[in-house]
Amino acid sequence: MRLAVTGASGRMGGEVLAAAADRDASVVLAVSSDADTVDPTSAEADTEIVADADLPAALAAHEVDVLVDFTAPAALADYAAACADAGVALVTGTTGLTDEHRAALADAADSVPVLHAPNFSKGVAVLHRLVGDAAAALADYDVELVEAHHDGKTDAPSGTALSLLDAVDDARGESPRVHGREGEAPRREGEIGVHAVRAGDVTGMHEVWLAGGREELRLTHRAESRRVFAEGALDAAAWLAGRDAGEYSFAEVLEVGA
Amino acid sequence: MRLAVTGASGRMGGEVLAAAADRDASVVLAVSSDADTVDPTSAEADTEIVADADLPAALAAHEVDVLVDFTAPAALADYAAACADAGVALVTGTTGLTDEHRAALADAADSVPVLHAPNFSKGVAVLHRLVGDAAAALADYDVELVEAHHDGKTDAPSGTALSLLDAVDDARGESPRVHGREGEAPRREGEIGVHAVRAGDVTGMHEVWLAGGREELRLTHRAESRRVFAEGALDAAAWLAGRDAGEYSFAEVLEVGA
Amino acid sequence: MRLAVTGASGRMGGEVLAAAADRDASVVLAVSSDADTVDPTSAEADTEIVADADLPAALAAHEVDVLVDFTAPAALADYAAACADAGVALVTGTTGLTDEHRAALADAADSVPVLHAPNFSKGVAVLHRLVGDAAAALADYDVELVEAHHDGKTDAPSGTALSLLDAVDDARGESPRVHGREGEAPRREGEIGVHAVRAGDVTGMHEVWLAGGREELRLTHRAESRRVFAEGALDAAAWLAGRDAGEYSFAEVLEVGA
Amino acid sequence: MRLAVTGASGRMGGEVLAAAADRDASVVLAVSSDADTVDPTSAEADTEIVADADLPAALAAHEVDVLVDFTAPAALADYAAACADAGVALVTGTTGLTDEHRAALADAADSVPVLHAPNFSKGVAVLHRLVGDAAAALADYDVELVEAHHDGKTDAPSGTALSLLDAVDDARGESPRVHGREGEAPRREGEIGVHAVRAGDVTGMHEVWLAGGREELRLTHRAESRRVFAEGALDAAAWLAGRDAGEYSFAEVLEVGA
Repeated sequence: MRLAVTGASGRMGGEVLAAAADRDASVVLAVSSDADTVDPTSAEADTEIVADADLPAALAAHEVDVLVDFTAPAALADYAAACADAGVALVTGTTGLTDEHRAALADAADSVPVLHAPNFSKGVAVLHRLVGDAAAALADYDVELVEAHHDGKTDAPSGTALSLLDAVDDARGESPRVHGREGEAPRREGEIGVHAVRAGDVTGMHEVWLAGGREELRLTHRAESRRVFAEGALDAAAWLAGRDAGEYSFAEVLEVGA
Repeated sequence: MRLAVTGASGRMGGEVLAAAADRDASVVLAVSSDADTVDPTSAEADTEIVADADLPAALAAHEVDVLVDFTAPAALADYAAACADAGVALVTGTTGLTDEHRAALADAADSVPVLHAPNFSKGVAVLHRLVGDAAAALADYDVELVEAHHDGKTDAPSGTALSLLDAVDDARGESPRVHGREGEAPRREGEIGVHAVRAGDVTGMHEVWLAGGREELRLTHRAESRRVFAEGALDAAAWLAGRDAGEYSFAEVLEVGA
Repeated sequence: MRLAVTGASGRMGGEVLAAAADRDASVVLAVSSDADTVDPTSAEADTEIVADADLPAALAAHEVDVLVDFTAPAALADYAAACADAGVALVTGTTGLTDEHRAALADAADSVPVLHAPNFSKGVAVLHRLVGDAAAALADYDVELVEAHHDGKTDAPSGTALSLLDAVDDARGESPRVHGREGEAPRREGEIGVHAVRAGDVTGMHEVWLAGGREELRLTHRAESRRVFAEGALDAAAWLAGRDAGEYSFAEVLEVGA
Repeated sequence: MRLAVTGASGRMGGEVLAAAADRDASVVLAVSSDADTVDPTSAEADTEIVADADLPAALAAHEVDVLVDFTAPAALADYAAACADAGVALVTGTTGLTDEHRAALADAADSVPVLHAPNFSKGVAVLHRLVGDAAAALADYDVELVEAHHDGKTDAPSGTALSLLDAVDDARGESPRVHGREGEAPRREGEIGVHAVRAGDVTGMHEVWLAGGREELRLTHRAESRRVFAEGALDAAAWLAGRDAGEYSFAEVLEVGA
């Protein structure tokens, strides 16, 4: 399998490069909006560093199988188009997507296999199921969500938080959400409070509360290192390579792996 | 339904009396090892206060339907025998039972309906299922359990903790358990560390960790008040009254109620 | 010491009545906006139940020493005026005050001793100091605050949270605060995120995060029962009775008691 | 400043090498019990890899200023002797030391500056002070400690936990400690329960509970990455180089830096 990795000078891109090196996966392209900012020692010696603008030509020239992306929504839309043109599968964990960005992914999925997930950890996938189960079983308990990430994260709440809220809605029907409370702010029946802590270097914490009847459940996930997401994305890339065009989920990857 | 409540001068017995008064359940007997220690204002005016020794006669005389017990193992064994003799159903949340105490419950269950549960909260029942699910899905992750209770609790770990550990064993097969670590104490493959915090007035906290692959899940339950257990026990009593002799579980009560 | 207790049919008023009964403090008046809603068994037999409108006359007639109040800002302003007129000391834990309400307290303090505190627990008083210490020592770490209360609490964040934020400002100078984050919401330099969870029956939880340099401190307080606040308010009442007119703080009460 | 780093193929040694590379600190020796296990790319190109046996000669030959050690007690004792002979300062975070190992450090400190600390994070240093303050202010509250580390840590409790317990003892006098509870295990007056969770890849979590009076304080530290300790040790090395022989503490380093 021959990989391209975007955001090569960023936090997650760098983590994917390191994880790939440790498992001897072949990264043929390290992609960056500014190729000069990529630390050459972060990738293997035979990895070519290319700027975004040169990606379409490079994807074809280097016979890339899968592009792995953790960047920003606008960049992702361009990468998706390039993948579709070059016949390259796409794995992406970029969050904060609007409907427009989702449409760009769907377009690409007409031509190539595409897997978008807000989170590539096995623990979060299990948490997703537990949250749905608990939200159904304790149907009259209040749900609130607290998540925490490093102070450089710009979208709130996290894509993972949104996915966990969807698990609650799947179990109970759609609930109104509030993103913080201030002043006279009584809790409406069924409302879900969503709280995005941004502090220091927190890799990622998600905590779902279910409270009522003089008791509480708190279901909490914590990542120890971004590496957990990089490993999951590489697992997804290995699983996705060679599949038919279409949209896939990380849950499918985990089931095959289990 | 006519109730007897044991341990009437203790923490949980008093809570059951208060919960019964709030829901207009009829407590005809308040039972105590030392009847002089029972605060008469803790029960309704028409509740009779009786000493343990007088219980057998009183159960029959007052046409009690269900006895609700949160006391200690030795006392429970006597109460079970008295219930069997008088044809009174038994709901008990007493923990720290040995095989001998369990045999006494089984004997009583030949004559009357008996429901023993380490915990009468709906949230813990749900947690039990979530822990089993997670332990199976993350089969290679380390499990540890931390529980906390007030400084007057004498058995460790709690009955609820033991029940949660059973949920892990049901999912994975039996695991060795350690109750604390000191000195050179490397973690053995598959070992479960069990940690009983005893401090202040903590009503009850249970937290199951699943950790591996650079991430952790923590599934936590916290009781806000002993009242949650008293309410659950009264629900169980209402459900148990009039049933056939035999042993029942709190899970059965919840399913009917759901 | 002869006490009046307001909000006698509410959560905290009822807790104060119960705590007073347990310590044999003499409550001569149980005050309520609607005297018909007060459960007569919640107070001692010789406690008189009075409506808000009749309070001014009753305060004088019953020779009340201290009025203890946990209600709402508008009611508090009236109580403060009545206390000033009747020469009765005032202890209040009502939160959500505006400048106008604070002015009413200051007016009363010209005539009688007044003690207003957002929180009457010893643990919170200690936490206040620890937060100030940590905010100074880790001056470049990000601060965020998460608090949780039962779903019936209408003001957000809690008065205790505001007081903890003041401790940070005292240590560092004033910081901008945000009450939740949604969408594109990058953390500004020095900003403090304040998050008010409202769920179930949570008595009260406050957690201050200090994060930076790849580590975090979390300083957390949790009340097990509203009784802790009732006991603190009664301690404050005993301390305040007979003092000179003026405004006092709960910290002064604790120091004398220590 | 010219550094030697021990345990160069281990978790912490590797982290120190990476941190040194990022801050352009000059590591002239990477030391390992088995020099063949050291990944050459983990150190800079001009770093020499040496086996433990060759360390004494290498220290002198390469004009090392400070040796930074995170290994095991027996190895540390040998390193201390080598440092003393060669006139090299020693910074060590190795834990699980017996009196014998401490004596070896004291011997070395007759000839060279030695700094031993169970933890090189600023947050833990602050936590240490907060714990002492809270333990004194809430003198009648129960103290318990829960710590968590990865499943490969062999000593329990952690050196950091022991140091936090010392802070409690300094505030209150010596308390009996128990390391886990099982069976009939009532809490003795003043006893401190110490609980060592070992699970997955937890970098390091320490939590001190103070509970009583129906409330709890929990003072928690969490490391996001071992890098925080590596950075602290390098700060200590820079501070220690050139000082007089003797034993120093990390608190001294932080005060100068503040």
